[in-house]
Amino acid sequence: MSEKAIQDYYPDQLSYCYGCGRLNEYGHQIKSYWQGEELVCHFTPKPYHTAIPGYVYGGLIASLIDCHSTGSAAAAYAKSKQIDLEQEAAPRFVTASLKVDYLRPTPLGPTLELRAQIVEVKERKVVVHTTLTANGELCARGQVVAVLMPENFVKDT
Amino acid sequence: MSEKAIQDYYPDQLSYCYGCGRLNEYGHQIKSYWQGEELVCHFTPKPYHTAIPGYVYGGLIASLIDCHSTGSAAAAYAKSKQIDLEQEAAPRFVTASLKVDYLRPTPLGPTLELRAQIVEVKERKVVVHTTLTANGELCARGQVVAVLMPENFVKDT
Repeated sequence: MSEKAIQDYYPDQLSYCYGCGRLNEYGHQIKSYWQGEELVCHFTPKPYHTAIPGYVYGGLIASLIDCHSTGSAAAAYAKSKQIDLEQEAAPRFVTASLKVDYLRPTPLGPTLELRAQIVEVKERKVVVHTTLTANGELCARGQVVAVLMPENFVKDT
Repeated sequence: MSEKAIQDYYPDQLSYCYGCGRLNEYGHQIKSYWQGEELVCHFTPKPYHTAIPGYVYGGLIASLIDCHSTGSAAAAYAKSKQIDLEQEAAPRFVTASLKVDYLRPTPLGPTLELRAQIVEVKERKVVVHTTLTANGELCARGQVVAVLMPENFVKDT
């Protein structure tokens, strides 16, 4: 498993995402690491991240799949372009579309594991498939089309 | 516009959802109201619900679309079955699949408006299309397949 997460390579000004920004003190601060050809992320929901009591809130599941997938897209893009992340900031991807299939209720309590597979890396677009498991059981499956963030996306501050 | 939200008719034990449960003190507590043939919901993100600075976190957008759509599914189902919600608890729907297309960045600051259209009501399934607008501009479009919650879904406590 890689030692640093892709999110640790985002430039500071792009590190305030509620899902994955290391500088958002209120957010989830998820971390995505290479593990072989996949990227893995672990997250333990809080007791209040509930849907029906005993199960994880579907919006959180969608959020985790979204952020882990865009992070994985950035990592895969950097790899394909041979970007040295120790020298250059990581590219930043945004979500064009997100699809989540909820296959079974996700129990609230155990640490969730997300695994992203890179389906396709194009010039400005990466397609990612991500699974979410709890206690080794597949609970949700996601598909994300991530696009390279336009350079004019960040407002001047 | 209807006076009470569909979420106000959920039974107490099913009112702890992080997105829409009126009894989840940490959650979003969204409210969905009939307005003509659609259901509408307004929500103002917090300053920390950010993606790239200046824009709303995509995971929150997915969460709002998810909860407003399942709430709308419950309302539409109750209407189709002529359930008197003043006498009976509202049915509860869970998400089978969620698809969100992010059409443009959603500005962080203004109140967001979600509008749900009921596409199809079947015996145990409702399909809902939901739009999300900010300042009158369409920012995201969602499609939710919601299914009636199985009766054995709630764990005995």
